[in-house]
Amino acid sequence: MNITLIGAGNLATQLGLALQEKGHRFVQVFSRTAESAEALAFLLGAEAVTRPELVRPGADLYICALKDDALSDVLSGIQVGNALMVHTAGSVPMDVLSVCTSDYGVIYPLQTFSKGRKVEFRSIPFYIEAARLESLQVIQALVADLSDTVRVVDSEHRKYIHLAAVFASNFVNYLYAISGDILQEQQLSFDDMLPLIDEVARKVHTMMPSKAQTGPAVRYDQQVMGKQLALLQNHPEWAQLYELLSKGIHKQATDKAASTNN
Amino acid sequence: MNITLIGAGNLATQLGLALQEKGHRFVQVFSRTAESAEALAFLLGAEAVTRPELVRPGADLYICALKDDALSDVLSGIQVGNALMVHTAGSVPMDVLSVCTSDYGVIYPLQTFSKGRKVEFRSIPFYIEAARLESLQVIQALVADLSDTVRVVDSEHRKYIHLAAVFASNFVNYLYAISGDILQEQQLSFDDMLPLIDEVARKVHTMMPSKAQTGPAVRYDQQVMGKQLALLQNHPEWAQLYELLSKGIHKQATDKAASTNN
Repeated sequence: MNITLIGAGNLATQLGLALQEKGHRFVQVFSRTAESAEALAFLLGAEAVTRPELVRPGADLYICALKDDALSDVLSGIQVGNALMVHTAGSVPMDVLSVCTSDYGVIYPLQTFSKGRKVEFRSIPFYIEAARLESLQVIQALVADLSDTVRVVDSEHRKYIHLAAVFASNFVNYLYAISGDILQEQQLSFDDMLPLIDEVARKVHTMMPSKAQTGPAVRYDQQVMGKQLALLQNHPEWAQLYELLSKGIHKQATDKAASTNN
Repeated sequence: MNITLIGAGNLATQLGLALQEKGHRFVQVFSRTAESAEALAFLLGAEAVTRPELVRPGADLYICALKDDALSDVLSGIQVGNALMVHTAGSVPMDVLSVCTSDYGVIYPLQTFSKGRKVEFRSIPFYIEAARLESLQVIQALVADLSDTVRVVDSEHRKYIHLAAVFASNFVNYLYAISGDILQEQQLSFDDMLPLIDEVARKVHTMMPSKAQTGPAVRYDQQVMGKQLALLQNHPEWAQLYELLSKGIHKQATDKAASTNN
């Protein structure tokens, strides 16, 4: 297909390169930042544009991989006739694209993208949606080239998938960061946490997370918890998180025990 | 060595089996629960005892792998002369063992142990400590049989390692559980989260967690965050966590940007 990319961030870059590998061609790359537009356009052999009104009609597919808060602003400036256009956002309804075209859809890959880190698309679930059945089939064929897991999911459910991903990914990473900061303050190395981090991630491949739960909060061991809270006295936000998360873990353990007894 | 195990939980079981594989022999296994004591004693070819005063002196090493809140209660009933005794807890000072013996120490493996799940000790960091230098050497040699990473760390630092582990492991697992619950309420599968979970864990092998951070909270995208909070209206505790974690992520991103500009 002849594709135009709206956006030149981490997701746009990796998606563009992966689709190029599968033989698709790129017409234009849009980004308000000339540097980003030009860098990605160069990689994809496409034309770089920095103003929405310079995005030309005529491509087979327009992929909008913009930050959510930039999306509607940029879209209002784009005129592409009634071409097929998709966005890649988890929490944005499909019909935000209706300002540009009546033939719209969504390609939402469930993954975290960082600069300079290549992601293997094959194992990433893609959630797709389209206003027209024929377009859904076009999108499905395209995405099946990249991934083994392609699911048709509506905008309502996609929101929950994105929310679940924020907990399992963004929030988890932030807890890693706190863990690293606690160790750094004691001149201890975060590297020692890696086997533990890996095992916790591996465990939930075969056990329900609630069943895999361990630690002082499960048995609400107030002695340990009190001592640990005392270590956090210079970090009131972390202490607050510690209390909330521990209460949640204990409640989960209690609920589970109660349901087992019924 | 001739070893007596105080405790018959997941850690005691896995540590016992791993040490047995390395040729060590087990004399007794103590647990207040006869079933647990007998099951592990059978596996280790040892005698099962359920009362602290039945723990006999004469073993080369006593390993106390009890829950923190049971520790001091059980210890006060044990008389083993001045034999070498270690405990395995992160947040308990070494000298809690001084009620039993003057020759004490700690073997703290940084890992999460679940029933029926075999853990590979080789890659697990062990933190050790001992009151006597000769005993530290005995412990070091024993643990080096099991693991490639043996570090001498005092009780004060070990507390922080345990705290960091609670954030990177127990709390992380609880976020997985919330993620799974969000999906389950929508009849969606948690399995789709696994490639994302794996990538987030893999990333911090080569990137600082704060650098690997992605998601709506980094840029404090209030539109997305507001929408996601609205989805959590029936779960006020999760909503509270969402807000706290998002604020923390945003603060971390802002602090990082400020320190880069200086």
